Amino acid sequence: MNLLASSKSEHLYLQIAETFQKQILDEVLKIGDKLPSVRSLSKQHGISVSTILQAYYHLEAKGLVEPRPQSGYYVSFNPSRFPRKIEKSNPIPVVRTKNVEAIIGEVYDDLAMEGIMKFSINVPAPELLPLGALNKAMMHAMRTLPANGTSYEKIQGNDLLRRQVAQWSMTWGGQLHADDIITTAGCMNAISYCLMALTRPGDTIAIESPVYFGMLRFAKSIGLNVLELPTHPDTGVDPDDVKKALDKHDIKACFFVTNFSNPTGYCMPDEQKEAMVKLLSKYGVPLIEDDLYGDVYLGNRRPRSCKSFDEEGNVLWCSSISKTLAPGYRVGWVAPGKYIEQVKNLKLYHSITSATAQQAAIGNFLATGRYEHHLRKLRQTLHANSLHFTRAIGEYFPEEIKLSTPKGGFILWLELARHIDTYQLYQEAMQCKMSIAPGTMFTLQDRYQNCMRLSYGMQWTPEVDRGLKKLGTLVKQMM
Amino acid sequence: MNLLASSKSEHLYLQIAETFQKQILDEVLKIGDKLPSVRSLSKQHGISVSTILQAYYHLEAKGLVEPRPQSGYYVSFNPSRFPRKIEKSNPIPVVRTKNVEAIIGEVYDDLAMEGIMKFSINVPAPELLPLGALNKAMMHAMRTLPANGTSYEKIQGNDLLRRQVAQWSMTWGGQLHADDIITTAGCMNAISYCLMALTRPGDTIAIESPVYFGMLRFAKSIGLNVLELPTHPDTGVDPDDVKKALDKHDIKACFFVTNFSNPTGYCMPDEQKEAMVKLLSKYGVPLIEDDLYGDVYLGNRRPRSCKSFDEEGNVLWCSSISKTLAPGYRVGWVAPGKYIEQVKNLKLYHSITSATAQQAAIGNFLATGRYEHHLRKLRQTLHANSLHFTRAIGEYFPEEIKLSTPKGGFILWLELARHIDTYQLYQEAMQCKMSIAPGTMFTLQDRYQNCMRLSYGMQWTPEVDRGLKKLGTLVKQMM
Repeated sequence: MNLLASSKSEHLYLQIAETFQKQILDEVLKIGDKLPSVRSLSKQHGISVSTILQAYYHLEAKGLVEPRPQSGYYVSFNPSRFPRKIEKSNPIPVVRTKNVEAIIGEVYDDLAMEGIMKFSINVPAPELLPLGALNKAMMHAMRTLPANGTSYEKIQGNDLLRRQVAQWSMTWGGQLHADDIITTAGCMNAISYCLMALTRPGDTIAIESPVYFGMLRFAKSIGLNVLELPTHPDTGVDPDDVKKALDKHDIKACFFVTNFSNPTGYCMPDEQKEAMVKLLSKYGVPLIEDDLYGDVYLGNRRPRSCKSFDEEGNVLWCSSISKTLAPGYRVGWVAPGKYIEQVKNLKLYHSITSATAQQAAIGNFLATGRYEHHLRKLRQTLHANSLHFTRAIGEYFPEEIKLSTPKGGFILWLELARHIDTYQLYQEAMQCKMSIAPGTMFTLQDRYQNCMRLSYGMQWTPEVDRGLKKLGTLVKQMM
Repeated sequence: MNLLASSKSEHLYLQIAETFQKQILDEVLKIGDKLPSVRSLSKQHGISVSTILQAYYHLEAKGLVEPRPQSGYYVSFNPSRFPRKIEKSNPIPVVRTKNVEAIIGEVYDDLAMEGIMKFSINVPAPELLPLGALNKAMMHAMRTLPANGTSYEKIQGNDLLRRQVAQWSMTWGGQLHADDIITTAGCMNAISYCLMALTRPGDTIAIESPVYFGMLRFAKSIGLNVLELPTHPDTGVDPDDVKKALDKHDIKACFFVTNFSNPTGYCMPDEQKEAMVKLLSKYGVPLIEDDLYGDVYLGNRRPRSCKSFDEEGNVLWCSSISKTLAPGYRVGWVAPGKYIEQVKNLKLYHSITSATAQQAAIGNFLATGRYEHHLRKLRQTLHANSLHFTRAIGEYFPEEIKLSTPKGGFILWLELARHIDTYQLYQEAMQCKMSIAPGTMFTLQDRYQNCMRLSYGMQWTPEVDRGLKKLGTLVKQMM
C-alpha cells in the first residue's frame, strides 16, 4: 500500500487521511473494517506515530472512522454508499402559480421562537462566523470613510469593495473590473433589480426546479410567469431542456444558482456552463446567475461561473457574503453585463445607495486576506458537517430515503417515501423544537411534498446528532 | 418698550432677541435702523450687558442685524420683505411622461466632482452632523446586538428602533405602536414598497407639483401614470383640487410631502391635513405621506402629520433620519396602516432584511435623547442659514425673482424671470464649481424651466456668501 499515492495535499497527515478516505469511498475499506494499527503503520512507512494519529483524528472528525476503546479505529461510514440517488426533477412544462406564501411565512415566523434547532435556516450559524474580525473591519471602515460613513456614497457602491470583488473574480475564472460591479443590499436585492430590469409584468422566466423560494415569491410579486425546468441533482439544468423551452415559450430571462444550488446542491459542470452561455447568447435571452455559494466548495477548487464564459455581457452575475460572513450586513453585488445602466438606475430609484460602512468593512476583509483565511476554516467545518449529517441520516432515517450529495454549500435535499408529507413532518418536528424546510416551498407546482431541505451550517454537537435521530424517528413513524 | 412682551422662550437672551426679531419682521425696525445701544438697554431694563450682547449676537447669527465698528448694531435684513411671492403651481390636469432621466443623471454625476459647492444637494452637510456620537452609537450597537449584528434580524426591523419611532410619534400627534412600523433602507425605499403595494403598472397616482424627482423616476420605472396637482408654496395641495381629480380620474394613491416639502418647502396646515385625510378615506384612496423633514421645523413646534388624523389605516406614513442624522446609514421606516402585510412582504421579497447595526444605532440615539439634543442645534443652524441665504439672494439676485419662505427643512425654491432657463444656469454655474438643481427635474410636464432649488443645509461661510453672489451675477447676466 502506498500511503501517498493519490494525494495532492501539502501536509503529510492530510495525505495519509486522503488515501484512506479514497479507500473508504471506493469500498476497499468497508463500514466496520478496522484500520491498520497506528504503531504498525508507523513502523511500516517510517512515519511518526503522532502524524498517523493526526490523520486518524482527521478521518474521525469527518465522520468516516470511529475509535473503539482498547481496539483501534474502524470505518464508520461511507458517504458514497447511499443506495438511492435523487433523480432529475421533472416539473410539468407549463406555467403554474400555486400560493406558497402561507407555508413560507409559517416556517420563517417559527424561526423566531426560542430554543429551536434550525435545520431549516439557510445561513451559517453565528458560531461559524469570524465575529471579532468583522467587528474590527466595521470600526476600521467607520474611522476611515468620509464623514464616518454617514454620507451617501456613489450609486454604484463602495470603491474598495468593488475593486476587491473584481480581483476575487479570478478565483472563478472571471475578469471583472470594478466598473462592471454594482453593490446591493444582499444577493436577493441584486436579483430583484436584475429581474425588474429584464422583465415586465406578464412576462415568463425559466428557472431550475426545485428553486430557492425567495425567487418564486419575488417573481410572483412583480407579476411574472415562472416556467420550471427539469433539474439534475448533480449537474443542474441541461442546455437541451433550456433549448426546448426557448423554442416553445417566449422566455425573457433564465435564472440558475449554478454552484451548489439551493436546495438540491447541484454544481453545473464547466462545459455545461459554457454550452448554456452560448445557447442563451444565441437566443438573446439573458441569464441571471446566482453564485452566492460558489466560495463554499468542499472539493479542491472554486468552480467557475457562467459569467466566466460570457463574452457578450449577457450574464448578470449576482453574489454576496450572506452565506459566508454576515447575512445581517446586507452586502451583495451584481455584475450585470450590458444591463448595467438599467440595474444601476433601479438601485438608485428604490433605495438611492446602500449602507456604507458594511460595504467598506467587507472590502477591507477581502483586501487583507481575512476572507480567504476564514473560508478555509469554514469549508473544513462544513465538509466535516456534511459527512456527519450524511452518516447520521443514513443511520437514523428509513432506508428508502434519497439524499443529495452536494460538493459545496451547506444544504442537503432529502426525498422521502412518496406518501410522506414533509409539511406534516415540519409540524411534528416543531413540536420537538426542530425546524425543517418542507419541499413544497421550492416550487409553484404540486411537487416535492415528500422532500425537505436540511442545513448543516451549524456546529456539529451531540445535540444536533440527537436532533437528527429524533427527526429520523418521526419519519419512520410516518412510514 | 417691553422687552419680554411676546416671548415664549426660556432663556432671557432669546426672549430679548425674539422681541427684536418680531419688530424687524413687523417693520417697526426697518433695514438700516440702529438697535438701542447695549449699555442704554442694560440700564433701562436692569438686564446685564452680557445678556443683551448675547441677544444681539443671536440676531447677528440669524443674519437680521449687523455690527458696525464704533457704532453699534443695525438691522441688516427683513426676511418678510421679499416683495414677490411664488404662486400656487398650475400643472395641466392630464398625465404626462417627459423623460427627466438624463438631466437628473447629469446633476447627480456632477456632484461627485471635487471642490463643488453643492447648492443642489438635498442632505445636510457632514459638518452639521453629530459624527462622533453616531460612531459611538454604532459601536454600542455592534457590541450589544446578537452575533454582533451579523445575523438576519426580524423582517419588520430592529425592535429598539421601532419602539423609539413609536414613542417619537407623540411629537407629531401620532400614537404609533412598535408593531405598526416596518424599518426600511431609507425613506425612498419605504415609499417604493408602499407604491408597489398599492398599484399595478398602468395605474395613475396623484402627487404635488413640483415634487421630489426621485418619486417621479420611481413611479415611471414601475409603469405608473402621474397626475400632478396644483400646489400652494405655503400650504401645499388643496383638498378641493384633490376632490376634483378624484372625481375625474381613477386614482389609486396620493403622495404628498406634507411638512416642508421638497422643493417648495410648504407645510400643510393642520386643518387641511385633517380635511385631506377625511376626503381620501371617503374615496377609499390611500395616502403615502412622506414626512422626512418634519423634525427640522424652524418655528416653535413640530407640525403634525396626516397620519395623526388617520383613523382607518389609510395613511402610509414614511420617514427617515437621512435628512437629520446620517443619509449613508440608510435607515428609514414606514407605518403603512392597513397595508402593513403587503409592505412587509415586499421588503422581504426585495431585500430580506435591512442592515442591522445602523438601525440599532439610531434606535439607541433616539432612546438616549441624543437625537433631540442634536435636532435643537441643527434647527438653530438651519434657521440662521435660511436667513443668511434669503438676505444674500435678496442682495445679489435680480429684484424680479420670487423666493419660497420655508418654515422648515433646508431647501429654497426660486422662480426667475420667465425666459430664464435654469438648466443653462446650471451649466454655467458648474463652470464656476457650483451646482444647483434645475426646476425641470421636479415635474414630468414642461414646467419650472425658470425655477431652481437651492439647499442651505451647509455651514454658512464667506465662501458660500461669495458663491451666492456669483450665482446672482450669472442670473443677472442671463436677464
